[in-house]
Amino acid sequence: MIRVGVVGALGYGARELIRLLGMHPEAELVAAADLESGKRLDEVLPSFGKITDVVTEPFDAEALAGKCDVVFIAVPGTKSMAIGAALRAAKIKTIDQGPDFRLKDTAAFAKYYKTEHTAPHLLDEAVYGMAPFYREAIRKAELIAAPGCYVMSALVPLKPLADVLDPGYPVIMNAISGISGAGRAAHEAFHFPEMNENLKAYKVAVHQHTPEIEQELGNRVPVQFAPHVGPYTRGILSTITVRLTEDVDLAERYACYADEPFIRVLGEGKLAEIRNVRASNFCDFGWVIDERTGHLIIVSAIDNLCGGTAGMAVQSMNIMFGLDERCGLTYGGMAP
Amino acid sequence: MIRVGVVGALGYGARELIRLLGMHPEAELVAAADLESGKRLDEVLPSFGKITDVVTEPFDAEALAGKCDVVFIAVPGTKSMAIGAALRAAKIKTIDQGPDFRLKDTAAFAKYYKTEHTAPHLLDEAVYGMAPFYREAIRKAELIAAPGCYVMSALVPLKPLADVLDPGYPVIMNAISGISGAGRAAHEAFHFPEMNENLKAYKVAVHQHTPEIEQELGNRVPVQFAPHVGPYTRGILSTITVRLTEDVDLAERYACYADEPFIRVLGEGKLAEIRNVRASNFCDFGWVIDERTGHLIIVSAIDNLCGGTAGMAVQSMNIMFGLDERCGLTYGGMAP
Amino acid sequence: MIRVGVVGALGYGARELIRLLGMHPEAELVAAADLESGKRLDEVLPSFGKITDVVTEPFDAEALAGKCDVVFIAVPGTKSMAIGAALRAAKIKTIDQGPDFRLKDTAAFAKYYKTEHTAPHLLDEAVYGMAPFYREAIRKAELIAAPGCYVMSALVPLKPLADVLDPGYPVIMNAISGISGAGRAAHEAFHFPEMNENLKAYKVAVHQHTPEIEQELGNRVPVQFAPHVGPYTRGILSTITVRLTEDVDLAERYACYADEPFIRVLGEGKLAEIRNVRASNFCDFGWVIDERTGHLIIVSAIDNLCGGTAGMAVQSMNIMFGLDERCGLTYGGMAP
Amino acid sequence: MIRVGVVGALGYGARELIRLLGMHPEAELVAAADLESGKRLDEVLPSFGKITDVVTEPFDAEALAGKCDVVFIAVPGTKSMAIGAALRAAKIKTIDQGPDFRLKDTAAFAKYYKTEHTAPHLLDEAVYGMAPFYREAIRKAELIAAPGCYVMSALVPLKPLADVLDPGYPVIMNAISGISGAGRAAHEAFHFPEMNENLKAYKVAVHQHTPEIEQELGNRVPVQFAPHVGPYTRGILSTITVRLTEDVDLAERYACYADEPFIRVLGEGKLAEIRNVRASNFCDFGWVIDERTGHLIIVSAIDNLCGGTAGMAVQSMNIMFGLDERCGLTYGGMAP
Repeated sequence: MIRVGVVGALGYGARELIRLLGMHPEAELVAAADLESGKRLDEVLPSFGKITDVVTEPFDAEALAGKCDVVFIAVPGTKSMAIGAALRAAKIKTIDQGPDFRLKDTAAFAKYYKTEHTAPHLLDEAVYGMAPFYREAIRKAELIAAPGCYVMSALVPLKPLADVLDPGYPVIMNAISGISGAGRAAHEAFHFPEMNENLKAYKVAVHQHTPEIEQELGNRVPVQFAPHVGPYTRGILSTITVRLTEDVDLAERYACYADEPFIRVLGEGKLAEIRNVRASNFCDFGWVIDERTGHLIIVSAIDNLCGGTAGMAVQSMNIMFGLDERCGLTYGGMAP
Repeated sequence: MIRVGVVGALGYGARELIRLLGMHPEAELVAAADLESGKRLDEVLPSFGKITDVVTEPFDAEALAGKCDVVFIAVPGTKSMAIGAALRAAKIKTIDQGPDFRLKDTAAFAKYYKTEHTAPHLLDEAVYGMAPFYREAIRKAELIAAPGCYVMSALVPLKPLADVLDPGYPVIMNAISGISGAGRAAHEAFHFPEMNENLKAYKVAVHQHTPEIEQELGNRVPVQFAPHVGPYTRGILSTITVRLTEDVDLAERYACYADEPFIRVLGEGKLAEIRNVRASNFCDFGWVIDERTGHLIIVSAIDNLCGGTAGMAVQSMNIMFGLDERCGLTYGGMAP
Repeated sequence: MIRVGVVGALGYGARELIRLLGMHPEAELVAAADLESGKRLDEVLPSFGKITDVVTEPFDAEALAGKCDVVFIAVPGTKSMAIGAALRAAKIKTIDQGPDFRLKDTAAFAKYYKTEHTAPHLLDEAVYGMAPFYREAIRKAELIAAPGCYVMSALVPLKPLADVLDPGYPVIMNAISGISGAGRAAHEAFHFPEMNENLKAYKVAVHQHTPEIEQELGNRVPVQFAPHVGPYTRGILSTITVRLTEDVDLAERYACYADEPFIRVLGEGKLAEIRNVRASNFCDFGWVIDERTGHLIIVSAIDNLCGGTAGMAVQSMNIMFGLDERCGLTYGGMAP
Repeated sequence: MIRVGVVGALGYGARELIRLLGMHPEAELVAAADLESGKRLDEVLPSFGKITDVVTEPFDAEALAGKCDVVFIAVPGTKSMAIGAALRAAKIKTIDQGPDFRLKDTAAFAKYYKTEHTAPHLLDEAVYGMAPFYREAIRKAELIAAPGCYVMSALVPLKPLADVLDPGYPVIMNAISGISGAGRAAHEAFHFPEMNENLKAYKVAVHQHTPEIEQELGNRVPVQFAPHVGPYTRGILSTITVRLTEDVDLAERYACYADEPFIRVLGEGKLAEIRNVRASNFCDFGWVIDERTGHLIIVSAIDNLCGGTAGMAVQSMNIMFGLDERCGLTYGGMAP
């Protein structure tokens, strides 16, 4: 059994990780570090009653290294740099579910996250935890930067087209996220009566996942990203409009995903829906070609907490520890 | 009191009209034609108990002309051509909430609605019922074609920019509608457990509101329209990405709306939300300019049933009958 | 025109009042007192753009009395005692949408609201603002205590049966409220992802509306009240199980409501639904008699913000000022 | 590996079963019988792409018996009698997720289900699939009748109190179910815009789960059951008001559940919420004692599709096949 620790146990990314570990046949949660230390996890999160009896503890990298085989970090963005550095200093395998180790360009990090990077020495070591593209590196990695949720929904359909994206024509990406993406902190903007039956855009043109998408597409094409938040809890639907420099056979381009366990290519005219990926590790996508305009419009869907965060992270863990990649992740979409 | 009739009384567009008329100080519902004729409206639609005692009747244009000052048509698309023709033959003022009299180009109508137009002789007479742009024509009109819901959310921000939209660069419009836009007919796709917590695109690049937007923008620029439907009942949020041929002062361009009673220009950096227009006749919009890409991204919001359908239609009625345009429409957005 | 002031302009009860006044043909909002004074109301509440240009001001009873014909209080429970006292001292007609002036028994007030009443001298003067039962007193009232939302849904069906409720058998009332009932303050319990798809009971057997229902039923029968909150914004559905001491003809008992403008008696076997009263001032109810157990089970529905709070308050205002009671309140239920 | 077949593969109960089997380490879906035979399951239910490649087939009891170790029936009520009889004739272990084999009293069945029972010879053999109470019988069973969803939420808290329920005082049970409980068939009543933001009662005093609860409580006390449906997909919250004949120590009564893997006794003053059991096999409950009335009010929560249907059925399968009861069911509640 892989002994798993988690730092930041009460946030939504951590809760999803704990939920997944409850069913994982080869891994178990053995430690949880959080501010409310000294309490049973299931006292604070009653949904885990009779699932775990772990008691939260203050963060101590050495202590975690002593009893865990791997530690997941699930804290808000910019808070994992220091934690990750401490864990790596303690020589424990680390999987960061946050953004701190994703961008190779510290200037871009500073610009989008409004703070300097405090552990740039780890950026070379950090492997981008997107199994379809970095499987071999993940196998040997000691530090994983799990991809951003929006990024996942963009890269899966776009990466196989990276060389034919028209550099003179930004990728237009409109995405709508469920509100769990905003995290667990109560805020007037996400108070139920304010957000129910509501829908809005936010951080248009300045969202911090923009440089991450651009980086992974080779920094050839700008990404015009307009994120939205809608009245539901889980899932991201991304609608991406691109112009290609040449005619390509899309089915052939996407044939690379035939054996990917968690990517489902729906094909032309078949558009992804959130319900089919809800609470699962899948990324679905399909597309439409508009002969009138020459545009390719792709619609992709993921569950932002599972396939977009904790599920992807567990998939990386499975690879790091030589397990079947699908281990503990074979639920279909929860529909309904 | 203006005596109002409605044809197709049970659909959502009609229900919203009846709801609005319940509060209108100068108009009242006196007749309702529908298939389930012979029943009290409030028996079929119990939300209108003690609001109306109208009994539904079979459609008879002459009969309606005899007792109404104006008749609204609220039937599914392609079903109002014949009804409108009969009503106009009976010389009754007619407001069609559906699409049949909006497109001037019958070829485009046939292409997008998959049927030939049967009353093309009325297309010249039909006035597009968008008060901000056709107020004078509406005043004298006998036949109004109320705009499509998506169209409303596009034209309000785009029409003042029509001359500076880059013709080589399609308008990219992503919009998300509440499910009431799909009408009242039960269908597996809109069964509550299928659509709750779900979100999906549909009719990407082929939606019938596309040529209507293009027509009203002067057919200079193609519109790349990706409609979506999300897990809420009312409202449309449209995110529109455009490239302009020259720098313009947007505040100046939009100054034309200062006295429009139902258009609220939020300004730069202020993005519209559905909650602020819910159950109201308002169209809100704001925008972001991305210096990196040179794009202008506009976000607009309407209530698809009120500001996008029945409210707009009532506004036209007010103008046709010489009332204050705001009469019966001065509710703020229902938030919460 | 009746000049209306409101104290506590940003809460949900006040917002609904302002929304209703936007359409009221004989009343208009002229003043709004709130903590965030000095700001335009529509800056803080953008849903009211182009509806009101009132600027919020600090609370000053004399100032309000100078420019208003009536002032509504819309502040959290226990906060209106002092405000109401100041307003009455300034001799201005006052309508309190909160609970402070409802209970005649100050001991019950202290027990359920955990604080002593600071203005008991006003309790005699205060008229319970439930038009169907206190219409004549309202007409002459200077101080109205608008009923609690849950209470409204209970009293309408129960009051005509008060004399035949079995005193040895508590009224069992289970009610579910939309989350707007919890007010506008953000709190983890009502953070969208926590409450969406959730449902829970709260304050079972200790809710402060219990003594109010009991008082209005003559304090003959205990009320066993279990309130719940569910994943929607507006509306209360109450399911009430009672045992009667004798067979009564319910249709006859409820005939008293035939001319009530906002009470709709659905009859036996017809159960109320929230959708039919949404955003309206109506209270609907119907019932089932279970021959097996001898129980009468009543299901009633209101909109907690309109029929349960602001709508009722406006109805009282209409009566106080000699207007048609229905004035500004004749919307049917918003379905959908 | 246990080879599992399912009859009625497209309904919500079956979908949940298939979802659970996707993660079950000791069981796999090998056959699915349904009307739309000849299609891949994942073509009809795209949420199961890359999870199963089973092709649906027409129902044939012998064929299923030849390739399965156990067959689950997931068809609408009254449709499983014939299927169950055929499966038992083919000597295959059978787990019926529907109601047909639950009631021992065929007269009650005929009354509540409006049809005669066609396989009464199987009622003796059928074991009620509620592990906490019938574990030993389940171990040896060949035919399981999995409990009704509402029933589960009632019996868990009530069964340990069965002997002290006051026979002169009906159990008052108000329950609210998510809309998935209504099944997958589209119907105007459950069309998204009709049911969103809505809440209603149905089948008050006549719901078919009533006699099932009464049977399992020993037919000593009548149950006054008012079911409701609310605007969410999954979960049942039941609020149950009872009077006991004597003071009992509830903690002691409920100590029997200490080792039950899927029952969580929250204790006095702690009320269950749907979010904590969502998508899990748990039943949570807590209670309040009202000194004023002498009533005990219990609030319990389950997920109607998992803990209330498929999860319970899988738990029975685990017991029948000698597996750890928790096998494949150890997810915590999905919150959020």
